[in-house]
Amino acid sequence: MIEDEYAAVPLAWVGPIRLTGGTVTGEFDVPLATFETPLWHSVRRGARLSTLTERGIAATVVDDRMTRSILLEADDAATALAAVGRLRDRFDELRDVVTAGSRHAHLIDMHHRITGNLLYLRFECTTGDAAGHNMTTQAADQLTAWILARIPGLRYGSVSANYCTDKKTSAVNGILGRGKNVVTEITVGREAVEQRLHTTADRIATLNTRKNLLGTVLAGGIGTANAHYANMLLGFYLATGQDGANIVEGSQGITYAENRDGDLYFSCTLPNLVIGTIGNGKQHPHVESALSRLGCRDERPPGENSRRLAAIAAATVLCGELSLLAAQTNPGELMRAHTRLERTTR
Amino acid sequence: MIEDEYAAVPLAWVGPIRLTGGTVTGEFDVPLATFETPLWHSVRRGARLSTLTERGIAATVVDDRMTRSILLEADDAATALAAVGRLRDRFDELRDVVTAGSRHAHLIDMHHRITGNLLYLRFECTTGDAAGHNMTTQAADQLTAWILARIPGLRYGSVSANYCTDKKTSAVNGILGRGKNVVTEITVGREAVEQRLHTTADRIATLNTRKNLLGTVLAGGIGTANAHYANMLLGFYLATGQDGANIVEGSQGITYAENRDGDLYFSCTLPNLVIGTIGNGKQHPHVESALSRLGCRDERPPGENSRRLAAIAAATVLCGELSLLAAQTNPGELMRAHTRLERTTR
Amino acid sequence: MIEDEYAAVPLAWVGPIRLTGGTVTGEFDVPLATFETPLWHSVRRGARLSTLTERGIAATVVDDRMTRSILLEADDAATALAAVGRLRDRFDELRDVVTAGSRHAHLIDMHHRITGNLLYLRFECTTGDAAGHNMTTQAADQLTAWILARIPGLRYGSVSANYCTDKKTSAVNGILGRGKNVVTEITVGREAVEQRLHTTADRIATLNTRKNLLGTVLAGGIGTANAHYANMLLGFYLATGQDGANIVEGSQGITYAENRDGDLYFSCTLPNLVIGTIGNGKQHPHVESALSRLGCRDERPPGENSRRLAAIAAATVLCGELSLLAAQTNPGELMRAHTRLERTTR
Amino acid sequence: MIEDEYAAVPLAWVGPIRLTGGTVTGEFDVPLATFETPLWHSVRRGARLSTLTERGIAATVVDDRMTRSILLEADDAATALAAVGRLRDRFDELRDVVTAGSRHAHLIDMHHRITGNLLYLRFECTTGDAAGHNMTTQAADQLTAWILARIPGLRYGSVSANYCTDKKTSAVNGILGRGKNVVTEITVGREAVEQRLHTTADRIATLNTRKNLLGTVLAGGIGTANAHYANMLLGFYLATGQDGANIVEGSQGITYAENRDGDLYFSCTLPNLVIGTIGNGKQHPHVESALSRLGCRDERPPGENSRRLAAIAAATVLCGELSLLAAQTNPGELMRAHTRLERTTR
Repeated sequence: MIEDEYAAVPLAWVGPIRLTGGTVTGEFDVPLATFETPLWHSVRRGARLSTLTERGIAATVVDDRMTRSILLEADDAATALAAVGRLRDRFDELRDVVTAGSRHAHLIDMHHRITGNLLYLRFECTTGDAAGHNMTTQAADQLTAWILARIPGLRYGSVSANYCTDKKTSAVNGILGRGKNVVTEITVGREAVEQRLHTTADRIATLNTRKNLLGTVLAGGIGTANAHYANMLLGFYLATGQDGANIVEGSQGITYAENRDGDLYFSCTLPNLVIGTIGNGKQHPHVESALSRLGCRDERPPGENSRRLAAIAAATVLCGELSLLAAQTNPGELMRAHTRLERTTR
Repeated sequence: MIEDEYAAVPLAWVGPIRLTGGTVTGEFDVPLATFETPLWHSVRRGARLSTLTERGIAATVVDDRMTRSILLEADDAATALAAVGRLRDRFDELRDVVTAGSRHAHLIDMHHRITGNLLYLRFECTTGDAAGHNMTTQAADQLTAWILARIPGLRYGSVSANYCTDKKTSAVNGILGRGKNVVTEITVGREAVEQRLHTTADRIATLNTRKNLLGTVLAGGIGTANAHYANMLLGFYLATGQDGANIVEGSQGITYAENRDGDLYFSCTLPNLVIGTIGNGKQHPHVESALSRLGCRDERPPGENSRRLAAIAAATVLCGELSLLAAQTNPGELMRAHTRLERTTR
Repeated sequence: MIEDEYAAVPLAWVGPIRLTGGTVTGEFDVPLATFETPLWHSVRRGARLSTLTERGIAATVVDDRMTRSILLEADDAATALAAVGRLRDRFDELRDVVTAGSRHAHLIDMHHRITGNLLYLRFECTTGDAAGHNMTTQAADQLTAWILARIPGLRYGSVSANYCTDKKTSAVNGILGRGKNVVTEITVGREAVEQRLHTTADRIATLNTRKNLLGTVLAGGIGTANAHYANMLLGFYLATGQDGANIVEGSQGITYAENRDGDLYFSCTLPNLVIGTIGNGKQHPHVESALSRLGCRDERPPGENSRRLAAIAAATVLCGELSLLAAQTNPGELMRAHTRLERTTR
Repeated sequence: MIEDEYAAVPLAWVGPIRLTGGTVTGEFDVPLATFETPLWHSVRRGARLSTLTERGIAATVVDDRMTRSILLEADDAATALAAVGRLRDRFDELRDVVTAGSRHAHLIDMHHRITGNLLYLRFECTTGDAAGHNMTTQAADQLTAWILARIPGLRYGSVSANYCTDKKTSAVNGILGRGKNVVTEITVGREAVEQRLHTTADRIATLNTRKNLLGTVLAGGIGTANAHYANMLLGFYLATGQDGANIVEGSQGITYAENRDGDLYFSCTLPNLVIGTIGNGKQHPHVESALSRLGCRDERPPGENSRRLAAIAAATVLCGELSLLAAQTNPGELMRAHTRLERTTR
């Protein structure tokens, strides 16, 4: 079965966004593919603000790893605990198993959960510039075979046990890490907040507490507190050939804002951003062109291109998030903007 | 800003899927747009199974509504409570406000949460064949203005308060409903399970309990227990012009399986499927063509086309979910399939 | 097996707390039984503050209901949906079943969830002045028998299905209600905040956002945002003969604070407070005496005594919560207080 | 303020329970203090079953640590990240800070979360036989002072930041560990299941999947899947002088059952059991006597007495959980038992 068609999703380059930080510095237009075209304008408004500040948006990549959990059935909990002890002792060998199976995957940590006689092992790898789904699945496969051949009292359960966790909402990714963990921050002067966003730092900070934090707690949200990260992420993911379903966990992030004597401190933290510059989907011409234009296909040490891409994605999220929150501080503004934009873009 | 480009996402029609139930009956190929092309084969394997059973996949649409929550600031909790009482008494007037503002939106219910002096109101509407994001936002805008003009002691907080909740993971959508609530079920005979899926009903039911239920609980999941609904949903959403970011909540669903004397009972419940056949994104030629081919552009009472589309989407989810779970009961099968398929589709 | 011993838990009356609002007005000492005796001093500090303000702590009882969910197995989802329709149509008869079985229980609402072929029904009753565990279990039993005898295609699953949910953490109780839903609020003048709590309104509001809201979101909390409601609740529950295990859900509540021009607005919302003045545990002499002293054994319409008790409990929670948060704004204060108090109370 | 009263909570010793495993082996009566006296009979029924099997209940203590999280405000995320790097490099010094401040506390690990410019540090200690609340708070205080004096760009936020997390429901304790992590398991023969519990292994396993796992997922539970751990835990905690409010997180545990050719495999996993044999509350005569009778005041290496107590507590939980689930497989049994027992114990 070879694809004979394409779904054509409208794409625009929006920007520039001014970015600083250890991973990437410069000004970039960013590509967003979406059927919801008012998104472009929302992100553009945030991007404008970044260019009005000296530092722009500071992006900090806090962590980078990809995970896969397996399920093993043990004779009982004591056997499972003993197995964990043996695996910890032989962790170097586990590492060698992964390295032998892939040039790019390196095992860096392992977590476990024992529940009854079930043993859940969560393997954490670096995967170079690939998002790393397949690389870690393959590593998990090989580790499973190695373990079952050497550690007594265990049987195969599943190569993926939802403790990874891929494309499902959870708390584990925020706490143990999966994908890139990126923080983006901006400080916008009082004047720009008032003139460009028609609001104040205090009103944005208050709204963030009441809506993103408290409203999400009331809704029974988990590990998340934001207005619409998912919109920006999906647009960016489709434009750059990512596995878009990873917005499920990628959009679990936290907006935090402060009124600093009238200036606005605004930050977006995305602890589980699964993203890469090589692998599935990256061979499509529009994707290759987008990645190149973003400077993410240059010669760099493994992982740097993908972390650069993650930083740019997270900055894009900040632009859209700031713009929407500002709009929602004013009665009627959101709807007016939508109505106007949808008219003009059709 | 007019889009000058498109992100071209590979699309294939997979099937046929045999579907029965009150909403839609027949056999359908379904369109899936994805960079992860092994998905097509996974769904196709599940679809084949549906055609081997007499009833195929039975789809039941349990509910249909769209929501938006607003935030109002009250003088104190007692004022907020009194306001809720007044709004309940005048619910007919609220309904008229919504009807006056839109031909398609009808207010059917309202929920509230009082936290300190903050009042969260969650409005629930039917929105015809539209997914209804904008329609409910507009209704919320108009209701807010109406309420602030008539009910004392309240001030504007936000037109969207995350208690809706749109594109964020939560428990509220599962409990109170948002979008279509669809259950899909199939019973596969023992022989087909063994010959087509190379496994048994018992092994699938056990894996579902250990991975989808227990593994998700360990991971800190919320309102969700499945392997990869997000993959099928995104593919279907992009192919049919949906707002793809709604897979965040849409993928919060529950797989439940039983071994019935060797036969497999397998079900997927999607309580929050936001989906429509008209509105944003539906005007693109490939989308119009896809919706027509699925029979979702026929003359039907308002809402029936979109419920039909929801049923087909949910059946597609079942096909992919069943196929993946079956594969994961066998060591190494998942990775072998991926490797083989990625080779052949490139 | 008759108890031959008692666990003696140290108890002190702390106060007075000044309370206002529709349910109860006056000044009250409150009883707290705990092995963690510094709790008394913490609550007392908050109580003092309440007496320094004119309105004291305003308590608003937002809701009152007790729930039990049952599980029924249906032939399939369509049968389950049809059953729900029939039950809605015959809701008056369901109500009669409950009324016939108990003088105090009245069925007021029913929610359902269909997952695969499983039907979860959540019955909501008022239960007079009893917390209502047994009353709703009995009602659920009788409703189950009635339903199975009349609605086709259903079989018994369980008399309790965790969708109630009793003594387990969840989102459902916050969203649909279980027990008393109480909001307590206080506004403390700037001077009192500074002199009595050695901090400022701004520092408390900021800490609440960063710790109770954001910290809990990071921790993967669900439907909760507070520092230590569980401490005050357990102390109050043991002293008043409650089923103490209900602190599991009772402690899922939300602290919300604002800096209002230097004054502190501080509120505690407890949406799931299971509490009663009659029933199990209330016959013990120290319990009877405590309930009488709190004025919760007076002649009042059914439910009023227990709502009064709920309001007093929630005000007690506010006192302890405010005191602890204030302490944590200052480095070292919490530990110093603990050390000093534990020395003096032994 | 010295306590002048006691809350007298009815207490009974129930058993014997047969226990095996690395931590404790033997038969024990266990003390349960509760106003809900049917609990005694429920636990006793489970205990009886344990004595009918050769191995009884096998308890495995998987982990043991106590935690406290602090909040620090950093200049920005990059400063926070640099601080984490410095602290990792100087982890030995952090360990020395804790050791210098307490004979019993030893720092064993540290986790961090960076959100915007906020830094959450979660310190993990062993605390000997104490539950360790105060010990870790004191350690956190001293670590905070040490860090603020040495690492640039940080300011005090809070000595407790809800990422610990104490007495609040969360996912973090299950994932990173807090208190004792204990698994208890039993295998009951088909005959005993039928004759003593009047049910079958298959019915119990099915109910566990539908109620404890699926029902809890529907309810929006987090990191938990059981029927009523909270009841047994509170009874055991009050009888042994624990801080009873820790049942909030302690009751977040997972019941897992399997039908093994007609025999019942039944397990209870309690990943966050905060419990100790010394410290606050342990000086009361009834507590000292209870701990001695359980053999938890003997001369043993630090931590062994408290892990022994944890194993016994977890076995008690299993007894009550098994008994209730068995009862709920039969229509009407639960209510009949309650009615009968409450009559006889009054």
